[in-house]
Amino acid sequence: MPIRPLELHPDRLLPADPATRTLARELYRSVADLPIVSPHGHTDPGWFAGNETFGNATELLLVPDHYVFRMLYSQGIAMEDLGVRNRNADPRAAWRLLAENYFLFRGTPSRMWLDWVFAEAFGISVQLNAETSDLYFDTITEKLATDDFRPRALFDRYGIEAIATTESPLDTLEHHAAIRAENARPGGWQGKVITAYRPDPVVDPEFVSDQGGFRENLATFSEVTGEDCLTWHGYLAAHRQRRRFFAQMGATSTDHGHPTPRTADLSAAEAEALFTKVSKGSFTAEDAELFRAQMLTEMAGMSLDDGLVMQIHPGAFRNHNARVFERFGRDKGADIPSRTEYVANLKPLLDKYGNEPGLSVILFTLDESTYARELAPLAGHYPCLKLGPAWWFHDSPEGMRRFRRMTTETAGFYNTVGFNDDTRAFLSIPARHDVARRIDCGFLAELVMEHRIEDWEAADLARDLTYNLVKKAYRL
Amino acid sequence: MPIRPLELHPDRLLPADPATRTLARELYRSVADLPIVSPHGHTDPGWFAGNETFGNATELLLVPDHYVFRMLYSQGIAMEDLGVRNRNADPRAAWRLLAENYFLFRGTPSRMWLDWVFAEAFGISVQLNAETSDLYFDTITEKLATDDFRPRALFDRYGIEAIATTESPLDTLEHHAAIRAENARPGGWQGKVITAYRPDPVVDPEFVSDQGGFRENLATFSEVTGEDCLTWHGYLAAHRQRRRFFAQMGATSTDHGHPTPRTADLSAAEAEALFTKVSKGSFTAEDAELFRAQMLTEMAGMSLDDGLVMQIHPGAFRNHNARVFERFGRDKGADIPSRTEYVANLKPLLDKYGNEPGLSVILFTLDESTYARELAPLAGHYPCLKLGPAWWFHDSPEGMRRFRRMTTETAGFYNTVGFNDDTRAFLSIPARHDVARRIDCGFLAELVMEHRIEDWEAADLARDLTYNLVKKAYRL
Amino acid sequence: MPIRPLELHPDRLLPADPATRTLARELYRSVADLPIVSPHGHTDPGWFAGNETFGNATELLLVPDHYVFRMLYSQGIAMEDLGVRNRNADPRAAWRLLAENYFLFRGTPSRMWLDWVFAEAFGISVQLNAETSDLYFDTITEKLATDDFRPRALFDRYGIEAIATTESPLDTLEHHAAIRAENARPGGWQGKVITAYRPDPVVDPEFVSDQGGFRENLATFSEVTGEDCLTWHGYLAAHRQRRRFFAQMGATSTDHGHPTPRTADLSAAEAEALFTKVSKGSFTAEDAELFRAQMLTEMAGMSLDDGLVMQIHPGAFRNHNARVFERFGRDKGADIPSRTEYVANLKPLLDKYGNEPGLSVILFTLDESTYARELAPLAGHYPCLKLGPAWWFHDSPEGMRRFRRMTTETAGFYNTVGFNDDTRAFLSIPARHDVARRIDCGFLAELVMEHRIEDWEAADLARDLTYNLVKKAYRL
Repeated sequence: MPIRPLELHPDRLLPADPATRTLARELYRSVADLPIVSPHGHTDPGWFAGNETFGNATELLLVPDHYVFRMLYSQGIAMEDLGVRNRNADPRAAWRLLAENYFLFRGTPSRMWLDWVFAEAFGISVQLNAETSDLYFDTITEKLATDDFRPRALFDRYGIEAIATTESPLDTLEHHAAIRAENARPGGWQGKVITAYRPDPVVDPEFVSDQGGFRENLATFSEVTGEDCLTWHGYLAAHRQRRRFFAQMGATSTDHGHPTPRTADLSAAEAEALFTKVSKGSFTAEDAELFRAQMLTEMAGMSLDDGLVMQIHPGAFRNHNARVFERFGRDKGADIPSRTEYVANLKPLLDKYGNEPGLSVILFTLDESTYARELAPLAGHYPCLKLGPAWWFHDSPEGMRRFRRMTTETAGFYNTVGFNDDTRAFLSIPARHDVARRIDCGFLAELVMEHRIEDWEAADLARDLTYNLVKKAYRL
Repeated sequence: MPIRPLELHPDRLLPADPATRTLARELYRSVADLPIVSPHGHTDPGWFAGNETFGNATELLLVPDHYVFRMLYSQGIAMEDLGVRNRNADPRAAWRLLAENYFLFRGTPSRMWLDWVFAEAFGISVQLNAETSDLYFDTITEKLATDDFRPRALFDRYGIEAIATTESPLDTLEHHAAIRAENARPGGWQGKVITAYRPDPVVDPEFVSDQGGFRENLATFSEVTGEDCLTWHGYLAAHRQRRRFFAQMGATSTDHGHPTPRTADLSAAEAEALFTKVSKGSFTAEDAELFRAQMLTEMAGMSLDDGLVMQIHPGAFRNHNARVFERFGRDKGADIPSRTEYVANLKPLLDKYGNEPGLSVILFTLDESTYARELAPLAGHYPCLKLGPAWWFHDSPEGMRRFRRMTTETAGFYNTVGFNDDTRAFLSIPARHDVARRIDCGFLAELVMEHRIEDWEAADLARDLTYNLVKKAYRL
Repeated sequence: MPIRPLELHPDRLLPADPATRTLARELYRSVADLPIVSPHGHTDPGWFAGNETFGNATELLLVPDHYVFRMLYSQGIAMEDLGVRNRNADPRAAWRLLAENYFLFRGTPSRMWLDWVFAEAFGISVQLNAETSDLYFDTITEKLATDDFRPRALFDRYGIEAIATTESPLDTLEHHAAIRAENARPGGWQGKVITAYRPDPVVDPEFVSDQGGFRENLATFSEVTGEDCLTWHGYLAAHRQRRRFFAQMGATSTDHGHPTPRTADLSAAEAEALFTKVSKGSFTAEDAELFRAQMLTEMAGMSLDDGLVMQIHPGAFRNHNARVFERFGRDKGADIPSRTEYVANLKPLLDKYGNEPGLSVILFTLDESTYARELAPLAGHYPCLKLGPAWWFHDSPEGMRRFRRMTTETAGFYNTVGFNDDTRAFLSIPARHDVARRIDCGFLAELVMEHRIEDWEAADLARDLTYNLVKKAYRL
């Protein structure tokens, strides 16, 4: 295994045709250094509140990144050996497993993001493989111990203008409070870290986690809010109260990770009866689905009142691998996308609120067959609907290209909302935004080459797709 | 907002690779001036019968084009302000709304079609924006008042060899009769305008419109035909009679805009009982669906007798936006495609008639996931099936490319039927045919470049896809 | 109809962009001459056992190739006239029908495969059309009578390292035994021809064929194995016994052509009761589906024991054309793909065996919408799952490109298994492998051009995709 140089080519991800590439390069240069606006993600606000150093290479780059360990697992490598839910794993040995199997990532976005992190963030100039495994582990681990690699320093270094984290209504948001206190302190750190309201743990009757399920969460919800969350009235009031509190902590959006985008518009009496059923814990799968559906419509109504932008992230079959879920818990690479239907499912919500000028709902999908068929036509008509970017498994060069090719002709660019990195892998954030900028500029260059837009329009659009649309859509 | 030149680049929509573009340009030149055959569309036959001048820019280009106003509506612009169902709207102010928001159409086919109309039809040489809004409105409106812009003059100017409109069985076809009289008049206008039989208003038990629903339509159907359309026998006889009459008025095809492509083959007794139920107005959604299904098979049977080509256009969820439908009626940009299944749905019809050499059924879809999976395999086997072109939301550069890429390898080119413009926006017809010719020639050039076909074959195919296939498939 | 030269361009199917093509050409050259490993197909083992000459052009290239005659049938040519199930057809006249209609295949893979066979295998240097029909028929038929065109000679000439056929458990495998005897004979032919265990005829309660249905097959299964296959216990034992026998005859895999990938994990008592129902022949469609589902899980359990790799080929609606099935039987071009769901369907099997290191299940699909949405995420997580190549209707240049574009970013290359030709058209095997190598090299070259992988990685991958992965995945 020879040692090979690691270099990020300046033209990476730009179209191969020389004239198109020249155009794309020019567009990319005009947006490459714009600030990063990250309106949806899963970083830990505690990082920015405490500003502690990160641990070692494995702890930062391998253990929390389910994109990485799911691929290794798919080839028979035990997650325990990678340090996932296993504090006894040797981090250096775990890193070596990644290094030896790094070829598995050829052609994947993880490879591009990681190489960016290695080269740009850590200044490593050789490729990762068995030979260089220890060099990597030591270099990264050493640098992480320095002040330059503390969370706030990295935040500033990568030009993050604002970042949103995602919290449950049960979260106290103490880290966000601490960050805001720091922001307000004379001479204090000025990084903008906001929260987003993700009520799944108290909205989904089938929610399960190590920390307890739906009924335990309702009890906590009552404690946290002082409302009686075992009554429909108190439960809704608790949501309103926490949404207000989240907004005070900077939130401009809510987020809903439902299995499907089903919505409902029950009468008050029906909704109350349904809530009674699910809150008592004796309900069918259909009851649970209907309750989630009703809650999307309730949340849309609350958004009309408090102005929070609503994000709907449907279509993941969570925790598909029963054994992995038992042993390792949620978010361990075993969430699998499912076929998703929007047209009938969204109708109840849209019938009620779809023409309200104050409402903004951002739709995501894991089912690309809905891009051209359902989502672009919906967003190209309803004033309240916008399309979130290519998401999760589709947050990749080919995935982003398909998104643009399949949505632009019907929804245009201005019913989309810029890029989301949606990650808990902090250092991959600039890498991911860089990929998105390159792919968008390549797509725009192709449109110019085919004389479908003019060059000055492409320049406008590059800036809009990178910076302006996200700020507008998320009311930042 | 600077004033910028408007120029249609001669190479627009041709592939960027220089060698491929050279080939594509040559192919395109060989078909660019072929006559337009438009076998399926929604122009108003009254235009050609009366040959009155069109009104102003807004009335011609904005109000009737749901592609245009749905995009504006999606960004919060009120349809009333655009003049949709609002005779009090100021057309100049409505036009200004389009002009100011024309950037929304970047990357959409509407932008390409409109720019073609502006530059080619009206000779405008600056781009549409807020600055040039009045110039546009005045230029267009003035030209529309001239004889050169009367419907027949435009028909001749753009080399339309034949155009089909679409009418309900309840339509008297008086305009078609007038046009045929004009055709027959010595020295009369020779434009070929034919009708197509679209029986949805008397076939769909759930049909609704401002002009009345299914039951009112059955009553009218009886009046128009002299048959008792409240009996199954009379109802079928009425169809046969009107189909004959439509054929006399030039029709060579029928058209069926069902929610799904479901077909059925009920016994005569079952069909009669079902008809009795739906015609009395007391039926379930499933009854309605089954009746439409049975009627597709009945229509196929009648096609075998009278030779009309059958078009099936399924998969639109019509009038999805309840409030827009109430306020503005049908066809207002709120039809949304749905997942569509062909394999099981078409089986009853195909079991009965699928191997009949005299039958021709042209299938369309709004669900591109069926192109390679269902439609191309069906059309690549059944003698009666052909594939209609990329339709509606997919009548666009990327949409057409996906159509060719996903159908050609299994169905070949010769199980397709050329291009349909399917529009009520009269002036966009040549623009749309031009886009189709460019995209097809680009696709053929790519096949030549990869040595999948030879250059002389591409030349043959360009002509077939543009002109020969449509004439053959529609029996024109 | 002029006579035109037939030449296979050395750069066919390589990307048009000149720099990309140069890279692709180099990659292709490095793998063009690697041996062919064909782990899944439908050639007749009798060819290699008997080594008789093939008959005439029509008998070899037209009659057995449902890709070819379904296209001709779709354009109204009677299958009888092509010699399908009609021994009275004049083979020369049948060939002429193909020749005259060869233009129908423009843009299809059949055209590329056939041209390869004509030029490479038979050395013909003019294109097939009406003028050259007899020349073709005579040239091919004459060559087929020579020793150079006997099955074993062709096998050796095309560098086939191993080929798997597919047999029913009821098959005696006498041809495989004969081939193995020949292999063992001093100086005997050394071609490696193995079988694969395809139990559909005794697993699918709805199985129909000219040779009898499921119940007749169970009776034969008892005879062949000496087990009482009307008891659940005996039936399972019979499978185990035949699998062992197939493995002795070289099989390394099983193959399951179910309508859906549904799996089940019934209790032993439930499974036995279900078997009793289906084996008595009185069952519902749901019973049949559930039985097939249960049997996939049973087969996975047996694979854990005997090490046979399991292939699941779901999603074909078999024998869709009732009249064609009646008249011509199975496999006559009337199998149509259907929407397919993997995430919920595979869960019972995966819950039971999905994390077993010894199990290997290769998934195929006819529903490309599942590539990025379901299959790549599943294969990118579960250790037992791998993705079979683009299959059947998608075994084509565009189909293979879609496969790579939609699976690589999530599943990587190393959860795929190389190429399958899956054909009964013997001479098309090298043509098909050649297409796959070209397309894969083109795809890799594109990744290099966009700096997503390095050139040395592309070279490694080209070899892996062509040769190494298939040997590993199929345990050859």
